[in-house]
Amino acid sequence: MLLIRTAQPEDVGTILKLIRGLAEYEHEPQAAEATEADLLRDGFGPNPKFHCVIADWEGAPAGFALYFYNYSTWKGRSGIFLDDIFVWPEYRGRGIGKALLLHVARTAVAENCGRYEWLVLDWNTPAIEFYEALGAKRMKQWMPMRVEGKALLQLAEKS
Amino acid sequence: MLLIRTAQPEDVGTILKLIRGLAEYEHEPQAAEATEADLLRDGFGPNPKFHCVIADWEGAPAGFALYFYNYSTWKGRSGIFLDDIFVWPEYRGRGIGKALLLHVARTAVAENCGRYEWLVLDWNTPAIEFYEALGAKRMKQWMPMRVEGKALLQLAEKS
Repeated sequence: MLLIRTAQPEDVGTILKLIRGLAEYEHEPQAAEATEADLLRDGFGPNPKFHCVIADWEGAPAGFALYFYNYSTWKGRSGIFLDDIFVWPEYRGRGIGKALLLHVARTAVAENCGRYEWLVLDWNTPAIEFYEALGAKRMKQWMPMRVEGKALLQLAEKS
Repeated sequence: MLLIRTAQPEDVGTILKLIRGLAEYEHEPQAAEATEADLLRDGFGPNPKFHCVIADWEGAPAGFALYFYNYSTWKGRSGIFLDDIFVWPEYRGRGIGKALLLHVARTAVAENCGRYEWLVLDWNTPAIEFYEALGAKRMKQWMPMRVEGKALLQLAEKS
């Protein structure tokens, strides 16, 4: 039996394991530096910086979806950016990923969001096909750019 | 003389013109549906959904940068997503775009953000080269996916 539920503060250990599992799947296991204290502070305070739902299968955590709100200056309203969606390999093939994706889509509609967006790795063909079958469009023309770490400090010091 | 300043509620008309100018530059003039009322409600209330700075040149609005906070589950902290950056054609070549980009980078560092990110159109070579010269990296592997409008309503109704 599948139950999708809003994550609680006592779930931060579970969430961190899932974040690390996803980082490993994306071939960057060392990139997941967050701690339980970070997640507790940022996701479960009065003004949470992210929102998380957990998929329990027979009472055990099988996957999660983690999102936050972005903003569209074209729509003039907020949207949802799905940062993470992940199901442990041993729980795949049961519709859990789809149920998580739909759960967050319903949240987006209930909150009058203009868009529901995420990023996908271009080599992840099964994921891309799965998302397209559900009505998502590839925004092929748009490429993410990023500054972080030392490069960000250096940029801030330029004149 | 260039002055970069935090946008105020009375700037929503200026901001909307800049949003529409950017939409036109991106070949989608009809896509900018937001109204002044939307921007006033979402950017200037107690819990603003976006933040905006305006570049004044000799006292006239020459450009803007508009951003909001995202979250990195790998860093375990917030980042800044630069949604819009735009300078009117007649004010280009004076370093205004760079000054806007650096202003937001300083905000990101001051607020201990882990990352500073944005999207660029893949045909916009001058912009890509400008960003790379400032230390930004292309995240070529990642592709944005989007559901909006009728497709989002349909997704939320699936089971």
